[in-house]
Amino acid sequence: MATSSPTHPRCLLPLSLGLFQGSLLVFFAFLVTYDEPSAQAEDANLVTSQLYGIFPLFQDIQVMVVGGLGLLLAFLPRYGLSALTNNFLLLNFSTQWALVLQGLLHHFHHGQVHLDLRSLLTAEFAAVTVVISVGAVLGRTSLCQLLVVAACEVPVYLASEWAIVTHLGVLDVGGTITIHVFSCYFGLGMSKALFGAAQRPVHPKETPTPRSDLLSLVGMLILWVFWPSFVAVLCQPGDAQHRAILNTLLAMSASAVTTVVASSLLERDGKLNLSHLQNGSLAGGVAIGAVADMAMPLVAALALGNLSAVACVLGFRFLTPFLARKLRLQDQCGIHNLHGLPGILGAAASAVAVLVTSEDTSRSHISQVSPIGGNASEVAGGQWGDRGAGGQALCQAAGLAVAMGGSLLAGLLAGAVLRLPCLARPPEQLCFEDSLYFKIQDQA
Amino acid sequence: MATSSPTHPRCLLPLSLGLFQGSLLVFFAFLVTYDEPSAQAEDANLVTSQLYGIFPLFQDIQVMVVGGLGLLLAFLPRYGLSALTNNFLLLNFSTQWALVLQGLLHHFHHGQVHLDLRSLLTAEFAAVTVVISVGAVLGRTSLCQLLVVAACEVPVYLASEWAIVTHLGVLDVGGTITIHVFSCYFGLGMSKALFGAAQRPVHPKETPTPRSDLLSLVGMLILWVFWPSFVAVLCQPGDAQHRAILNTLLAMSASAVTTVVASSLLERDGKLNLSHLQNGSLAGGVAIGAVADMAMPLVAALALGNLSAVACVLGFRFLTPFLARKLRLQDQCGIHNLHGLPGILGAAASAVAVLVTSEDTSRSHISQVSPIGGNASEVAGGQWGDRGAGGQALCQAAGLAVAMGGSLLAGLLAGAVLRLPCLARPPEQLCFEDSLYFKIQDQA
Amino acid sequence: MATSSPTHPRCLLPLSLGLFQGSLLVFFAFLVTYDEPSAQAEDANLVTSQLYGIFPLFQDIQVMVVGGLGLLLAFLPRYGLSALTNNFLLLNFSTQWALVLQGLLHHFHHGQVHLDLRSLLTAEFAAVTVVISVGAVLGRTSLCQLLVVAACEVPVYLASEWAIVTHLGVLDVGGTITIHVFSCYFGLGMSKALFGAAQRPVHPKETPTPRSDLLSLVGMLILWVFWPSFVAVLCQPGDAQHRAILNTLLAMSASAVTTVVASSLLERDGKLNLSHLQNGSLAGGVAIGAVADMAMPLVAALALGNLSAVACVLGFRFLTPFLARKLRLQDQCGIHNLHGLPGILGAAASAVAVLVTSEDTSRSHISQVSPIGGNASEVAGGQWGDRGAGGQALCQAAGLAVAMGGSLLAGLLAGAVLRLPCLARPPEQLCFEDSLYFKIQDQA
Repeated sequence: MATSSPTHPRCLLPLSLGLFQGSLLVFFAFLVTYDEPSAQAEDANLVTSQLYGIFPLFQDIQVMVVGGLGLLLAFLPRYGLSALTNNFLLLNFSTQWALVLQGLLHHFHHGQVHLDLRSLLTAEFAAVTVVISVGAVLGRTSLCQLLVVAACEVPVYLASEWAIVTHLGVLDVGGTITIHVFSCYFGLGMSKALFGAAQRPVHPKETPTPRSDLLSLVGMLILWVFWPSFVAVLCQPGDAQHRAILNTLLAMSASAVTTVVASSLLERDGKLNLSHLQNGSLAGGVAIGAVADMAMPLVAALALGNLSAVACVLGFRFLTPFLARKLRLQDQCGIHNLHGLPGILGAAASAVAVLVTSEDTSRSHISQVSPIGGNASEVAGGQWGDRGAGGQALCQAAGLAVAMGGSLLAGLLAGAVLRLPCLARPPEQLCFEDSLYFKIQDQA
Repeated sequence: MATSSPTHPRCLLPLSLGLFQGSLLVFFAFLVTYDEPSAQAEDANLVTSQLYGIFPLFQDIQVMVVGGLGLLLAFLPRYGLSALTNNFLLLNFSTQWALVLQGLLHHFHHGQVHLDLRSLLTAEFAAVTVVISVGAVLGRTSLCQLLVVAACEVPVYLASEWAIVTHLGVLDVGGTITIHVFSCYFGLGMSKALFGAAQRPVHPKETPTPRSDLLSLVGMLILWVFWPSFVAVLCQPGDAQHRAILNTLLAMSASAVTTVVASSLLERDGKLNLSHLQNGSLAGGVAIGAVADMAMPLVAALALGNLSAVACVLGFRFLTPFLARKLRLQDQCGIHNLHGLPGILGAAASAVAVLVTSEDTSRSHISQVSPIGGNASEVAGGQWGDRGAGGQALCQAAGLAVAMGGSLLAGLLAGAVLRLPCLARPPEQLCFEDSLYFKIQDQA
Repeated sequence: MATSSPTHPRCLLPLSLGLFQGSLLVFFAFLVTYDEPSAQAEDANLVTSQLYGIFPLFQDIQVMVVGGLGLLLAFLPRYGLSALTNNFLLLNFSTQWALVLQGLLHHFHHGQVHLDLRSLLTAEFAAVTVVISVGAVLGRTSLCQLLVVAACEVPVYLASEWAIVTHLGVLDVGGTITIHVFSCYFGLGMSKALFGAAQRPVHPKETPTPRSDLLSLVGMLILWVFWPSFVAVLCQPGDAQHRAILNTLLAMSASAVTTVVASSLLERDGKLNLSHLQNGSLAGGVAIGAVADMAMPLVAALALGNLSAVACVLGFRFLTPFLARKLRLQDQCGIHNLHGLPGILGAAASAVAVLVTSEDTSRSHISQVSPIGGNASEVAGGQWGDRGAGGQALCQAAGLAVAMGGSLLAGLLAGAVLRLPCLARPPEQLCFEDSLYFKIQDQA
């Protein structure tokens, strides 16, 4: 897809996307069929009730990633159209690519690949990691480069997710480790490898206007409202799911209030910083994912929401400038503050929660469905039974290490690929500009 | 409603709407009662589960037509408020008008008219045809004219829908033929009859700004996300509904990616055209409606999504200018490219799918619920049993012909009615201007 | 929280919010546990189906209050960011505060406080009253003052709700009396006590621009679409819920059309007034709440929608200016027209409906679940059984009187508290200005 042929870059995008669509057709034609659940379950009512259980949550998640995330990224005043369309295209491409890889990897030995709503959902989770990662380089990459990122990141995510959830048996129902931490460090590695050497002043185009900030704020609110669906969609129906929803609601509510506290304490003259609000209010949702369905006291959800919001705001105020100065690490959207720090907090919390929750309660209450759709639930339960709470806590830590290390390495490699000359980088004067992709009339 | 009395046009709107509200009250007072399903089913649980099945999808569709479609039409920079409010008013008026007509036509012989959520849904489908059709004349008609369009189009739609689904037994669960093709050619006919003779230069007010394009893009994303609910809401619960959701998701994902390919190949210097994105990404959803619940291979959904996006983009690039030049046909929103071409493709696909799908599978899997709420399901199944796959394929073609021909004719007539002098057309300098309806402050 | 210590006001906000978050942690740590419904019901399927029944509606309501209400308030052109963020913060703070009070008041005597999705929902209803009330003083209060309002209003709401629903047995499933009337008169009282003496010219900043009006319009559409969920969420599943949804849909559709009629009759030269549209279209939803689940003829829902829209538009045109002139009562958002007048209409309609509906039907069909989650249903049913339809109609009137009187008094007191010198009021030149809270770049 990113061969170093001397193709003119303007043709590279439609050609590679077109080729991919063609291959997708071939793949589907020969290998994929609709999974007829009622033929197996011999019970149409079961299909219906499963569908009614998952479909509304699936739609909520679609709203989050297509609308919410797209608008959240639209804070650059002259890059709103590109933020929305790039996000939309990347989501679709990555989902299709993840469907192909998932099909080939996990179901190939059964002959036909069966597709259902759950497989689409797990493919969409893979796509979410891509759109989170590219937040680190928002506005300074071409669409071609972004597609290469997706092509690289999806297989790495699937491997990492398999290693963490299926192999290590890490409990992470809301994707704190597998999605948020992974995509954050992938994005940072990519940004470092792509822009690492250069030092550069801040464009005036990077400063949000009230109008673009409002779009981003609306995006945050959309994400905030539907986040419980994201965390709870793969939980076991019943108590675990109910608990996941409650814990997420409490954590996000605590985050929202704490962000205001932290932001007004840190900003000069007590005003609020909009990027703090846009990100800190969501930090609780990132952190709660790994523990949301555990039978822990509800106060832990509140505390996690408080802590992660503080971490996020402190990250924006101190860590991001520090990393930019010392490591020359550019993180345009602050994904490290929204996905990295709260993700690490959430992973740590999951280790503590495993240790604290008595094993008896845990065995009956904590269950985990692998986002890939395997039977990790039994595996995890069984392994934990063998390894004890201490072992499971170590596993959570190991999962975090795998997610961080693997994604950082893969991100660095992906960033190096992005420097290939055939993948034209946008010229400096077209960075943060919709006119890179669109014919824009003067707004005079 | 549109009598040629010498009433001053400014009073015509509130008077006619007020009269209509009065008649509606009389109609409801004497003829409509709440349908007490549990009294018939003697099972409150059944009511509850049916409600939980249909209500979330109903809400999704409301979001689509009120929010998504309204914003999609808000691409004219000085006409956003009017686009949203006209869309909202037309939807409400047309739904009420369809409820009256549906009640009178279909249930009258049972004495009382029983109302439930499903009747509201099918009335809303009738309203959707109206708001699609008026896209052809967006910005150049008065609210009075639009209400006359609704008054004309709803009864024609109900008749056409009865002829196509109930009488011919056409399979069209997602409204590809009955809603999209119908409303497109009704709108084109109306536009031709209303503006046909005049040639006119392009207003500068017709060119979107980045801000208005962004609103329209958000509208597209809302429609894109919730489209599966629109297609699947009237499917048989169980496998058929699951299949409809999957097929729609695949078709729309393919459309989104293919639109980018086609647009960047066709535009000079490889940029993207926003109107292509705003429409092409939805083309797959229009096309898939007629086949969504059939037991066809999933690759067909992808291919249909690809093809319809290409057709839509080619339509914008070549067909719309051609029709404007040769036939002096004005299509402000490009409804022919979004609803017409993909609709025809979808209808053709449904004929092919009927032929290809073995009859055995079809008989058990393909089922169809008439949007009017009758028992078309059995009728269709029975007729197909008699007529065989070839006959059914012919029926699909006949349905397409009826939808196109009938709506074009009715649209031409409706357009002629709109030229009545009592229905004031907005003066040229107030076209594409919110100040036609609203007191607008200078944006200085 | 609002002690008259000489703390500098800039620190008052983070300090008080921080202290509150700390107390919340203590409260949750010692008193609140997750309510394990399956342990009581011994039936995980029941939990699942209850969750699937309530959760989608809960999400709809979250979208309404976080997104819809926030955007509806964003009509001030330079105050959009503040409207959205204040609304968001107030909702979160008030929900947490209501959770604490609800826990202490209603469940304390059982020892542990059990939390489930329904308790969060009723806490959110308490928060809704706060964000409605502060609409009366939008743009002229500091965040500190708004938090004090929330601190005062939530306990009064809980007491009033207990008196009206549990003690008096008033039927009000959609919160017409307990939420809308209550919050309206609380807000008016507060506004009178806070700004009562001052007369002031209209700021130019108070006039909406087309852009801010469009945001507000989108907010209205979001509220309009999801309103049926708000009314129906606490209904008995089955027929009562179905009826509540249908009645709300009909009332809101009638409101939308009637608003256009009324507005174009009242405005000079027949144009439409956007604030009429933004509010009148929702009036039907406010009014229908008290009768939505009753077995009344459907025409009553339509008529109520028509009447309440007319009342709302007349209120904007005549009553608001009159009150401002005569009583020096400032009502920035016109909450009296959207929540007060339609609420009173709805309460009156509920008394009539109780009288008209034959008691036999009523006893079997009308049921009511207390938003607080108690067993008001049986109490109400029983009391009505004793008191007869006439008694119940009197109760509805008494409930209205309690809601109006109690909230007006409490609002006057709260407004007096807001004048405490330690709660800095924003200086006049920063009213209706985002720059009060945010660093705003010049939009040059």
